Amino acid sequence: MATATEANALGYNLKVDYVIHYSFGDSDQAQAIAQLEKLLQTLANAGLQSEVRQGDETSLLVFVCASKKRLNRAVYRSRVRDWLYGIRNAEPEPASSIEPQNEGERLRVINQMITLPTEEGGAGITPKHGEWKNVTGLLPLHDEETNKKWLHEWSQKTFLSEEDLDQIRDKFGESVGFYFSFLQSYFRFLIFPAVFGFSCWLLLGGYSIVYTLVNSLWCIVFVEYWKRKEVDLSCRWQTKGISAVQTKRREFKPEKEIRDEGTGETRGVFPATKRMQRQLLQIPFALVAAIGLGVIIATCFAIEIFISELYNGPLKSYLTFIPTILLSALVPTMSAVLMSIAAKINDYENHETNDAYDSALTQKVFVINFITSYLPVLLTAFVYVPFASHIVPYLDIFRLTIRPFVSKEHTATDCSSFKIDPHRLRNQVIYFTVTAQIVGFAMETIVPYIKQHALREYKEYNKKKNGKAENNGGKDSPERSPIMTYDDPAEEKEFLKRVRNEVELPEYVVTDDLREMCIQFGYLALFSPTWPLVPVSFFINNWIELRSDFFKICKEFQRPTPLRCDTIGPWLDTLGFLSWVGSISSAALIYMFSGDSQTGPNGQPTDIKGWALLLVIFFAEHLYLIIRYAVQTAMNRLEPPNARKERGERYLMRKRYLESTLQAEANEEPEEKELVSDVPPELTRSALEEDARRNSGHSADPAERFWMRQRGWTESAKVGTGIILAQPTKGNAKKQQ
Amino acid sequence: MATATEANALGYNLKVDYVIHYSFGDSDQAQAIAQLEKLLQTLANAGLQSEVRQGDETSLLVFVCASKKRLNRAVYRSRVRDWLYGIRNAEPEPASSIEPQNEGERLRVINQMITLPTEEGGAGITPKHGEWKNVTGLLPLHDEETNKKWLHEWSQKTFLSEEDLDQIRDKFGESVGFYFSFLQSYFRFLIFPAVFGFSCWLLLGGYSIVYTLVNSLWCIVFVEYWKRKEVDLSCRWQTKGISAVQTKRREFKPEKEIRDEGTGETRGVFPATKRMQRQLLQIPFALVAAIGLGVIIATCFAIEIFISELYNGPLKSYLTFIPTILLSALVPTMSAVLMSIAAKINDYENHETNDAYDSALTQKVFVINFITSYLPVLLTAFVYVPFASHIVPYLDIFRLTIRPFVSKEHTATDCSSFKIDPHRLRNQVIYFTVTAQIVGFAMETIVPYIKQHALREYKEYNKKKNGKAENNGGKDSPERSPIMTYDDPAEEKEFLKRVRNEVELPEYVVTDDLREMCIQFGYLALFSPTWPLVPVSFFINNWIELRSDFFKICKEFQRPTPLRCDTIGPWLDTLGFLSWVGSISSAALIYMFSGDSQTGPNGQPTDIKGWALLLVIFFAEHLYLIIRYAVQTAMNRLEPPNARKERGERYLMRKRYLESTLQAEANEEPEEKELVSDVPPELTRSALEEDARRNSGHSADPAERFWMRQRGWTESAKVGTGIILAQPTKGNAKKQQ
Repeated sequence: MATATEANALGYNLKVDYVIHYSFGDSDQAQAIAQLEKLLQTLANAGLQSEVRQGDETSLLVFVCASKKRLNRAVYRSRVRDWLYGIRNAEPEPASSIEPQNEGERLRVINQMITLPTEEGGAGITPKHGEWKNVTGLLPLHDEETNKKWLHEWSQKTFLSEEDLDQIRDKFGESVGFYFSFLQSYFRFLIFPAVFGFSCWLLLGGYSIVYTLVNSLWCIVFVEYWKRKEVDLSCRWQTKGISAVQTKRREFKPEKEIRDEGTGETRGVFPATKRMQRQLLQIPFALVAAIGLGVIIATCFAIEIFISELYNGPLKSYLTFIPTILLSALVPTMSAVLMSIAAKINDYENHETNDAYDSALTQKVFVINFITSYLPVLLTAFVYVPFASHIVPYLDIFRLTIRPFVSKEHTATDCSSFKIDPHRLRNQVIYFTVTAQIVGFAMETIVPYIKQHALREYKEYNKKKNGKAENNGGKDSPERSPIMTYDDPAEEKEFLKRVRNEVELPEYVVTDDLREMCIQFGYLALFSPTWPLVPVSFFINNWIELRSDFFKICKEFQRPTPLRCDTIGPWLDTLGFLSWVGSISSAALIYMFSGDSQTGPNGQPTDIKGWALLLVIFFAEHLYLIIRYAVQTAMNRLEPPNARKERGERYLMRKRYLESTLQAEANEEPEEKELVSDVPPELTRSALEEDARRNSGHSADPAERFWMRQRGWTESAKVGTGIILAQPTKGNAKKQQ
Repeated sequence: MATATEANALGYNLKVDYVIHYSFGDSDQAQAIAQLEKLLQTLANAGLQSEVRQGDETSLLVFVCASKKRLNRAVYRSRVRDWLYGIRNAEPEPASSIEPQNEGERLRVINQMITLPTEEGGAGITPKHGEWKNVTGLLPLHDEETNKKWLHEWSQKTFLSEEDLDQIRDKFGESVGFYFSFLQSYFRFLIFPAVFGFSCWLLLGGYSIVYTLVNSLWCIVFVEYWKRKEVDLSCRWQTKGISAVQTKRREFKPEKEIRDEGTGETRGVFPATKRMQRQLLQIPFALVAAIGLGVIIATCFAIEIFISELYNGPLKSYLTFIPTILLSALVPTMSAVLMSIAAKINDYENHETNDAYDSALTQKVFVINFITSYLPVLLTAFVYVPFASHIVPYLDIFRLTIRPFVSKEHTATDCSSFKIDPHRLRNQVIYFTVTAQIVGFAMETIVPYIKQHALREYKEYNKKKNGKAENNGGKDSPERSPIMTYDDPAEEKEFLKRVRNEVELPEYVVTDDLREMCIQFGYLALFSPTWPLVPVSFFINNWIELRSDFFKICKEFQRPTPLRCDTIGPWLDTLGFLSWVGSISSAALIYMFSGDSQTGPNGQPTDIKGWALLLVIFFAEHLYLIIRYAVQTAMNRLEPPNARKERGERYLMRKRYLESTLQAEANEEPEEKELVSDVPPELTRSALEEDARRNSGHSADPAERFWMRQRGWTESAKVGTGIILAQPTKGNAKKQQ
C-alpha cells in the first residue's frame, strides 16, 4: 500500500515531499544568501535532498525530498517514541525493514525531520520563528488527481465509507480525518431527527413535547456516541493517547529555570498559580464580551422592534434596513476586536504546550460565538415574548431621536395597539438555521474561490501591463518585477505554476470548521423545538458541507501538514455543554409556548407562572442529567470494535511475554520439586514426628522448631488425617478413647 | 527494610505467612482426608511449606510458609505483569535478585501463589468455592506487637504522618491504606469548617449565608483535593492504573463461549446489552426502596408529630416512645430485606469482574443508605415545615385508632392550636450528627468487642461444663468435642490459642467503613447550615474513628489480605453526588429559614414563595457547578508531588531509550553524510547545471530529471544565490540586464 500511494501522490508531484517557501524580500541580499546556504546545508545534513527554483519576485521555492534510508530511520524513531509513550503496543521492527505506513505518516515524519530540534534528531528549522524568519512556509503539495477523483466519487454517494475517511486521514493526517469523521457521524445521526422532525412538523407543529424529548435524547446519544467513536477511531488510526505526547510551544516564556530533582535536567517553568491568576482575566473578558456584544445586539433589536412594530412614520420601508445594516456592521467589528483581545489574553496566559494554548483559546472564542450566535434568539424567546409589553413603552426614546425629522402626528400613540409578533421567534430560528447557513456556505467556500481567481487574473493582468510599460521604457513601478515569465524549464512550467499558486494560499485550520459545526449543533439543541424542520435543513446543509469542506481544503488552502490527534479536543466539551443548555432552553420554550388555551394562539404566551417555569426547567435539567448518566454508563459498557481489537493485541503481547517468563521458570522447576517432597513415605508417622520433635528441641528459634515438626506434605497429611479421625463425628471417638 | 519487617512480623508469628482454615465437619471423613491430602500436595507443588494443627472440633489449621526462592519468583512474575500493564515504569530486575518490597507485597504475592489459577502460576485454591469447599478461610496473622505499639503512638498525636499511612499500607495493603488515608485527609480538612462553623455559630447562629457558601466551597475543594490525593497516593504506592488489571469473578456465568478473532482464545462472554436490560431492575428497586422505607419513615414521623404535638390524652409520656421504637425496629428490618434484594439483583446482573460487581452493589447500597440517613431530615425540612398546616389535620386518622381506648374529651380539637415546632429541624440534625454518631461508634466498635469476649468466655465455660459432664459419664451432649484442652505442644499453646481466635473472626470489608464516612460527609454537605457545629462534632468523632477503626481491624477482624487499588472507587462518585445535592439542599434551607422579619422568628417560615425558592435553587446549583468546574480545572493544573516524581522517572526511562536509539544511528551516520555533500565545490554553477540538464535529458522520468538538476546542496545554494541576486531589490537588476 505504501508504495502504491507513494507512486501515485509523489510521482505526480515529481516526488517532492515538501516545499519550503523562502522569502528574501525583507532582508539584505548578502544576509539572505548566507541564510539560504545555511538552510540548504542543514537540510542536507538531516538527509534531505533539495532543489531550488524561483518563487515570486521576492521568494524562492526550495523543494525537499527525503532520502529513503534516513526517512525509514526517522519513521523508526518516531515509532519507538510512540511505543515508549504507550501509543503503540508492540516495539517496532528495526529501522532497516521499516516503511512509512501511508502518505500521512510519511509527510508527518518528514515534517518532523525538518522541524524537530536537533537534539531530538531533526533539522531544527522553525518557519517564521527565530533565526528562520525567512522561511515563511513549509507545505506539502496537493495531490490534485486524487483530489479530483474523490470529489467526483463523493458527489455521487450519500455517505462516505470508513475507507474514504481512512483515505482522508492518509492524505491530510488524523486531525483533518477526525473532523471529517465527526462531520460524517453528525450527518448520519441527523437522519433520525430530520425524519422525526419532519413528521412532527406535519402532525404536531412546533413546540411539541414529544419532539423536544426525542431531540434532547438524541443530543445526549450523539455526544456520547461521538466520545465512543473517538476512542474507536483513535484505536483504528493508532493515535490513542497521543495527547500525552505534547509539543512545547515555541512562544512559551519560562519565568525561571529550575533543575528537576528526579531527571537532573534544567527546564524553564512558569508557575501554574501565576497562570491561573492570569486566567482570571477570562471573567472580565467574558463580561466585556457579553456586554459589548449584548448591547449592540439588544439595541439593534430594540430599534428593529420599534421600526417594524411601533413606527408608522415616513420612510418606514427604508428604515427597516437600519438595524440589519447596523448589526452586520457592528457585530463582526466587535467580534474581531474581542477575538484579538482573546488572543492577547491567551498569549499572556503563557501556556506551555500547543494543546493547552489551543484549548484555552477555544474557550474564549466559544464565549464570543455563543453570544453572537444565540443571544438574538434568546432575547426574542426570553425577553421580547414575556416582557414585551413592559419594555415596549420605553422604546419611546427612539421616537425622541426621530422627532426632529418627523411631524408629530406620525409618531402618535401606537404603543397601546402594540401586539407581540407571534411569528417572530420562529422566523428568527428559520433565519439562523437556513438563511445564515446558506450565507455562511457562500462566504466560506464560494466567495474565497472567486476572490482567489479574480486576484490571480488581476495579478496576471497587472504583470502584463507592467511588462508592457517596462518594454515601453516606463519607470513608474520599480517594485514590480521585470521577470514576468519565469525562467523555468519548459517541462516544469505547469508544475511550478501550480506550486506558486499553492504557496500563496492560506494555511488550513481545522478548528474553524469544527466550530462551525458545534455552533450548528447548538441551534439544534437549543431552539429546534420552535421549528422542527431545523434538522432537515441541517441534514441538507451538511451533505453539501462535507463535500464543500473537502473542496475548500483542496482548492483554497495549502495542503495541511498531517497532525495526529485522538479527539476533536475542546469542541467535544462544547457539544456537551450546548446539549445541557439545550435541555434548559427547550424545556422553557415548551412551557412558554406549547400550551394552546391559556397561552393564546400562535405562540403568544399570556400567562407564564414563574414558579411553574422554574419547576419545569428544574425537572427537565435533572432528567437530562440522569438520562445522560444512564446513556454514558451504557455506552461505556459497549466496547468499540477497534478498541476491542487493540485490547486483544495488547493482551496477546502480554500473554506471550508472561508465558515466556513462566517457561523460563518451568525449566528450573524439577530440581526444587524434589526437595519439597523429599520424604521417605515408608516411615511411620509417629516415628517421624518424634524425630522432628527431637530435632527441634536442639534449635533455639521457636519458629524453626515449629516448622520442623512435620517434614514434607505427606507428613502434614498424616497428622491431619489423625486429627480428623480423632473427631467424634460418627461416634468413633469413643472407641479410640 | 524488607528483612527488617519480615523479621519483626513473621518472626513473631513463627514465620507463618498464611493460615488455611480447613473445615471437615460437614463432609464424610474419607472425603475430608482425601481433600486434605490434595490440598497439602497442591501447596507443596506450588512451593509452599505446610504444618497442620488442630483448629476447633471440626477444623484444622494448615499453616503455610512460602519458600524464599519460589516467593521471589512469584514476586518477579507479579512485577512483570505490572510492568506489562503499565503499572510499573521499569522492567523489573531478574528474579534471582528480587525481594518483596514490604510485608504487604509479600502477603499479596503469597496469596496469589495460593489462589491464582494454575495457568497463571498459582496453586488454584479457591476458599469456599468449587472443589475447595472445605477451605473455609485463608488469612494472614495479625502482628499484635506492632499493632499495640501503633495504637499507643497514635493515641498521643493528632494527625497521622505520611509514614504512619505507609505503614498501614505495608501491613494491610493498599485498599485499607486508601481508607485510612481518606479518613486522615477528611479529618484534616475538617479543621477549617470546624473552626469556621464554631465562629459562625457564635456570631451568626444557624442558617447563615456566609457559612453555607463557605461550606459548599469546602465540599467542592475537599472532593477535588481527594481526587488529586488519590493520584498522588497511587503514584507513591505504585498502584496507578491497577484497576486496568481486573480479576474475573469466580461466580460469573458466561452465556456462551466465543472464540476471540484477535487472540484466538475461547472465552465466556455475557452480552453487555443483556446485562443492561437486567440492570433496569435497579429502577423498580430504587422505587421499592424509596417507597418501602419512605412509608415507614413518614408514618413514624407522622405518629410522632401527632403524639408530641397534637395528642394530649393519657399515657402521652409513654406513647412518645412508640415512633422511636417502631423506627428502630422497622427501618433496620426493611433495610436488611432491601440489602438482600440488592445483593440478589446484583448477582443476577452477572458482572464479569469483581470491581464491576462491587461498584454496582455500592450503587444499590447507597440508595438504601441515602433514604435511611437523609429522608427523615428532608421530610422535616421540606414537608413538615412548609406544609405542616395542610398536613396536620389529616393526622386525625390516628385519633380514630386511639378513640376506642380514650374518652372523647381527651382527644379534643387542638388542631387549631397547632404550631410548628421551630426547633424540630435543628434537633433532628443534632440527633443525626452527634447522638447517632456516638451510637454508631458504640455499635461498631465497643459492642462487637464485648460480644466477642463474652462469646469466648461462654464457649470456655461451656467446654468446661461439658468436659465435667463427660467425666461424670454424662452422654447428653454427643456433639461437643471431648478434647477440651487441645493436644498442643506446650510452647505453641499461646500461639495456637491466638490463631484459633483469629480464625473465628469475621473478614474485614473496607467498603463498610468508607460508606460510613461518605454518609457522614453527606450530613455536612446537606444539612450543616442548620447547625454550624456539625463539623465540630464530626471533627471530634473522626479523631476517635481513625483510632477505633484501626483497633477494630486489629482486634475484631481477621487480618485483611492485602488488596491493591488506586482509588476509593464508587464512593468517590458518591461524595461528588452528595456535595452536588448539598448545593441544592443548603440553598433551599437558607432561603426558607434564614430570613428574620418576613419568615417569623425561630425558623418558622411564614411566606415561602415557590418561584423565589426555585430561583434560589437554580442559581445555587449552577453557581456550584461553575465553581466546581473552576476548582477542577485549577486542581488539574497542580501536579501532585508523587505524580511529578513518577512522570520524571518515566521521562528518564524514555529518554535513555531514545538516546540509545539516536546513538545507534549516529554510529552509522558518517558514511551517508559524504554521499549527500559529495559534490566538487570548485566547478562553476552554470557548468554544473548544464551537466545536470544534459543528464536529465536522457531520463524518461520527469521526477528524476527534476531532482537531477542540482546535485548537492552547494549547487542548490548557487542557483538560489543567482536568483536572489537577479532580483531588482537594490536596483541592480537593471545592470544585470
